[in-house]
Order: sequence, then structure tokens, then C-alpha cells
Amino acid sequence: MIGLKKSPDWIQDLVDSIKAVTGPGPVALHQPFFGGNELAYLEECINSNFVSSVGPFVDRFEVELAKFTGASHAVAVVNGTAALQVAMLLAGVETGDEVLVPALTFVATANAVHHCGAIPHFVDSSDNTLGLDPVALRVWLEKSAELSGGFLRNRDTGRRIRAVVPMHTFGHPCEMNEILEVAREFRLNVVEDAAESLGSLYQERHTGCFGLVGTLSFNGNKTITTGGGGAILTNDPDLARKAKHLTTTAKMPHRWEYVHDCAGFNFRLPNLNAALGCAQLEQLPDFVKRKRELAAKYSGAMAQVDCVELILEPPGCHSNYWLQTIRLKGDNNSDRDAVLGALNDAGVMSRPVWRLMHHLEPYKNSPRAPLPVAERLEKTLINIPSSPCLAG
Amino acid sequence: MIGLKKSPDWIQDLVDSIKAVTGPGPVALHQPFFGGNELAYLEECINSNFVSSVGPFVDRFEVELAKFTGASHAVAVVNGTAALQVAMLLAGVETGDEVLVPALTFVATANAVHHCGAIPHFVDSSDNTLGLDPVALRVWLEKSAELSGGFLRNRDTGRRIRAVVPMHTFGHPCEMNEILEVAREFRLNVVEDAAESLGSLYQERHTGCFGLVGTLSFNGNKTITTGGGGAILTNDPDLARKAKHLTTTAKMPHRWEYVHDCAGFNFRLPNLNAALGCAQLEQLPDFVKRKRELAAKYSGAMAQVDCVELILEPPGCHSNYWLQTIRLKGDNNSDRDAVLGALNDAGVMSRPVWRLMHHLEPYKNSPRAPLPVAERLEKTLINIPSSPCLAG
Repeated sequence: MIGLKKSPDWIQDLVDSIKAVTGPGPVALHQPFFGGNELAYLEECINSNFVSSVGPFVDRFEVELAKFTGASHAVAVVNGTAALQVAMLLAGVETGDEVLVPALTFVATANAVHHCGAIPHFVDSSDNTLGLDPVALRVWLEKSAELSGGFLRNRDTGRRIRAVVPMHTFGHPCEMNEILEVAREFRLNVVEDAAESLGSLYQERHTGCFGLVGTLSFNGNKTITTGGGGAILTNDPDLARKAKHLTTTAKMPHRWEYVHDCAGFNFRLPNLNAALGCAQLEQLPDFVKRKRELAAKYSGAMAQVDCVELILEPPGCHSNYWLQTIRLKGDNNSDRDAVLGALNDAGVMSRPVWRLMHHLEPYKNSPRAPLPVAERLEKTLINIPSSPCLAG
Repeated sequence: MIGLKKSPDWIQDLVDSIKAVTGPGPVALHQPFFGGNELAYLEECINSNFVSSVGPFVDRFEVELAKFTGASHAVAVVNGTAALQVAMLLAGVETGDEVLVPALTFVATANAVHHCGAIPHFVDSSDNTLGLDPVALRVWLEKSAELSGGFLRNRDTGRRIRAVVPMHTFGHPCEMNEILEVAREFRLNVVEDAAESLGSLYQERHTGCFGLVGTLSFNGNKTITTGGGGAILTNDPDLARKAKHLTTTAKMPHRWEYVHDCAGFNFRLPNLNAALGCAQLEQLPDFVKRKRELAAKYSGAMAQVDCVELILEPPGCHSNYWLQTIRLKGDNNSDRDAVLGALNDAGVMSRPVWRLMHHLEPYKNSPRAPLPVAERLEKTLINIPSSPCLAG
């Protein structure tokens, strides 16, 4: 494709092919769909007076999340960033540690590390999954880190590298087996950022359940929403208890005394938001089905468009296709902004992938591996409208 | 009262006098009341698809909060702890600073300091307001701190003391004029913790508007609730802009790029919770009226009970009477748990004041002033049922 003379009309062809799927009117990148018991459950909250940090919908949402994902325990929290921050602490991350994070991620992944007083250490992504690349990770750690005193140390900074955070980009699962293998070898705890992958399976098991701890997000733009919300998943009952304790101000059980045994967080998910979550969770299988149908539609519509491909689920995976993603092929990197302009001008809300973490002011001095794949993905990926209702 | 022989029946008299107000059935400490547009506004969220971090109810809630309190700006956030943490940062609190905080407060006040990487430094409370005592504060700072290099330094630890956090306990305003005077003299920024005092006035101005920054909470047990929520109040437009930026992942405005100029927070209040807040705010004047009537009822009912007094609003203040509070007089300190047992056994949900901060494991080594008043208050204060519906 390099050097190929492209038709001046390919961008218009792309816009047309997307609009053939989304219809003639303006269309959002992702909007939630409320077609179930949302109002009934919200009304139950109001009528029962339980809207806040304790209530039956919080318990029910946690039980249903565990059932759906197959995790032994789910702890509902106020959002995905809070879930990640506490997950880091559960994984033993301490002030001054480094945590391996993909450079290609939403800023929350790096912020959660920062909010623990730790330092994100950026690693490269895979062209096949858009997630953390286990081969590049191993090469980088062999070169730049060493096991010493039972821990992995960054040879350059001397700091302990405590954990690795695979993130399932746009809902497409990372190569978890290979990542777990590297983590075992280098004594890293795995915190799995499944904020985008509720409903996505890797080798028939739900994402978020492979690491020591996993996290979910239910922000308004996610596959299901609680307004704002998140959850911590784990198979370890002690970590689950600790997660609940840390996120509820670390208050000790007592009939009336207010005793807190550590500096905890106010990260509880209100019952009101959990009520919305329970109603949304009932519709999740249908949402995922529709999002997969939408991917098939886009794939068909784009088959005739030069220079562009739709990102498809990696082999052995069942993706939720949270955000539908196209990749500009070959030498079209510099055309990204032209495509974004044309799509958004045509009322088709679209966005590039996130600015890479090491290109952001707060993280420009963080340690990092070579990032050739992430750098290329930053210039060539575009998310297009992905709401489940678009499947028709 | 010291040494007075008390009737063995005084505890039963107290239980009876409280039940005379609350009625025969079991009664909660504080429950929300949803008698307005709650369901209509929640339905509007669902029907409009705006439930998450952006939406018309967030803007409206902020405007209405500013109007009600008289602050120039209100920024809605996910809860009161988040509001306090960001307020500290706005007040210039940095890692390693000390922040003056009453020992008698809910743990969130100290946790917010801790989550900034700073150290809470505990000071004493006043018998008259139950809030930070400006006289004791001045005496303590004159003895233990010195102005050096333009900042106040703790002579003992060498650390900078950056701010002071008056908290309006149970809705009763602190002596703000005197506290502001001490703060000016010792170059301390004032972060006003008004989590409990929405609707409370000090010299006819709303609490939370006297310091550089103030904070509110709308937890389920507060005078109005959003499920979980809080707000930052300020009269400084630059601080308001900074508060909004920091609490919304510090994303720079752009048509599609994801650029964040510092490590921000995901502390947005979802539109769903703001909708509840808008409906609750419409009823706030009525709630405060009822809570003041309830105080008058308790006061009348308890007039005949030995050894106990109801805490009344300080002179020059208009209190929201968030939590109704009794004080065991004289030598009855050791009777606190007996009273709590009798009340709770009778179905009258009651609680002591919080365990003092320096008695908690995470803060036992924090710097502190002498705390004789707080120590006495810890042993003698009890909160009794306070819901607005109890006023009849």
C-alpha cells in the first residue's frame, strides 16, 4: 500500500460507507440504551428511601456482576478510576513503585497509578490486539530490569516494578496467557483493566478475571452504564474483603462506634447508581449481540473502501466491540485528521485513539520502553459510532 | 452538677422524652425525604439518555447551589471527600505540608488531607460551637509554629502548615470571623468543610462561603442527598475553573483530541445524581424549617430530664440542625454507652460523636495541640434521630 496513489474520493467513500450503516441523521459516538427496568428500579430506590451508600441494589449488582463475569467476588465502586486505584493497592503497589502500563490507554490507567504515589512505566501495544504486547514486554524487561531481593527492579531508576496492567482496548482482549506467563517469570502482579471489555471473553473466560485483580467501568459511554460507576473483580476472598473495607472509609463493624483502622476511601457506589446498573446488566447480552452485529455491518459496508480496515476481534476471543475502530492503512497516517474532520462535519461523531500517555505533560518524563507500535496506532486508529441501537 | 446523685431512672426518662417526639415505632438516625420532583427528574435523565458525567442537571445543580449559598461558583463532584481533597489542592496544599483540622470530625476531613500526601495536624474544638476553637488555635500556633520564608512552619516537625479546615459540626457554624482573623495573621488558607451545614448561616451568610474554598456533601444521611455527591464552593473564578478542570480528568477542550495537562481526577457528579439533587434542593428550605422545629420539640421534651441538654445553635447563627445532639452533663461521661445502649435497644437509633482523629490508628502519630475540649465532647455527645419528617 505504501506509495500507492489513492483516489481523492476515498475519504468521501468512507463517510458514505459509515453513513450507510448509521443512517442519514447525526449520530453519537456511543450512547446508552435504556430499554429495561431502569425506571422501575430507580422508583424502587426513591420509594424505599435507599438511594445512597447502602442498599439492596448495591448487593444485587455485585452478585450479578460476579455471576456474569465468573469472578468469585465483585465490589462496586464509584467509577473505573477509583476501581483501578484500589486494585493497585490490593496488588501491593506502594509509593515510589513503578507499574507497567500501556502507553496506548485512556489517561485513567496512568492516573490511577499516579494517585497511589507510584510511577507509570509505559510499554508497547500489539498490532493484533491493540493491547499490551507480551513479546515486546519480555524483551524490554530482559533488557531494562532485574530480579533482586525477590522483586523486579528497573535497572535505570532503581525503583521496584510491582505490577503490570493489561488493558483490553475498545473491548478486544489482550493475549492474557502470554502476559500472565511474563508476569509470573518477572514476579509482577497483574491488575487487569477491563474498563472497556465487559462482555468480552478470552478463550471463553471473561476478561478481568485473569489477573490478581480486575476492574470494570460503567461510565456513560460504556457498554452498560450506572451514570458513573466501576467494580473490582477478584477470585481472592481476602482481597475482596479488603477492597470493600478500603472503599467504604475503612470503618470497623460496630453497633455505634466510628472507628477506622486505616486511611480509607469514600469510593462506594450509591444504591441509586447500582439500581441503574442492575437494569442495564439484564440487557447486557443483548447489547453485546447488537454491537457484534454492528461490527459485521460496518465490515460489510467498508469492504469496498480503499485504505481502511475495521478492527476485528483477535483469534480465540469474543469481543464486546465496545468502540468500533477503523485503521487507516499504509501511508495514510497523515490523513487521520482529514478523516476525523470529514466524519464529524458529516454528523458522524468520531474520535482518534487517545493521545499516548508519554505525549501528555504529566507523564512525559515517565520511564518507557520503545513504543513503535503504539506510535503508529496513535496516528491510524479512529473510533466510529458504536451504540448498540445502530445494529437496527 | 459534679457529684450530684442522679436518679437511677434518668436514662429511662431520656428514652421516654425522645420517644415522646419520635413516636412509638423504631426510628432511624437520619433518613432522606423524597417529596418533590425526584422521580420526574430521574425519568427526564432516562428519557433524554443523559445519565452520566455531562448533562443539563449537573449545570443546573451547580447554578442552584451557587444561588442558594451565595457563593459565586459551585462545582458538583462525586462526594464530599472528593470535594475536600480537591479543595486542599486549590488551597495550595502539597505533599509533606501540614493542615490544621479539628480532632473532632468525621474521618473524611483527615483522609482528604492524607490523600493529598499531606499530614493532618489536630486542633481543639469549642464547647459553644462544637467546631474549631479560634482561641485555642491562636494559643497553640503562637507556641508551636513560626512564620518563616513567608509561610507558617511547625517548629517541631519543620513542615509547612498550609491551611486550616474549620468544620461546622452537625450543622452548627464555627466562629468564622475569629477563625479568619487567626488564619490571616498566620498566613493560612481557609478550607471550610461545610459538609454538614447546607442551609446553616453564620451572621446571615451561608457557611462554606467564608474561606478561600468551601465544600458540601450530599451523602444519603445529609440534609439533602444525591445518593452520593458533594460540591466545591468558591468566590474565585480561577479556582472554580481549576476545580472543574481537576475533577474532570484535566482534559483540554478540543473537538476530538484527548489531551490532559495534568494528572486529574475522575470526580464528576453523574447527571443522574445531580437530577436527584435538583429535586432535593427545591425542598431544602422546608427541610431546614422542619429540622429547626424538631430541635424545638426535643428541647421542650427534654426540659424535665436531668443530666442532659440539647445542643442549640450558637449566638448569631441560623443552624440547619443536621444532626440533633444531646450532651450528657457533669459527671455522666461514663454513662454514654449506657445511654446509647438504652436508646438503640428501644429502637431509637443513636450514635456517639466520631472517635477523635488522634485515637484512630492511621492518625495516632499526627501532630496535635492539647485537645481537652474534644476529649470531653467525645465522651458526652450523642446524636439522636434527626429526619425532617419527625417534625410532624
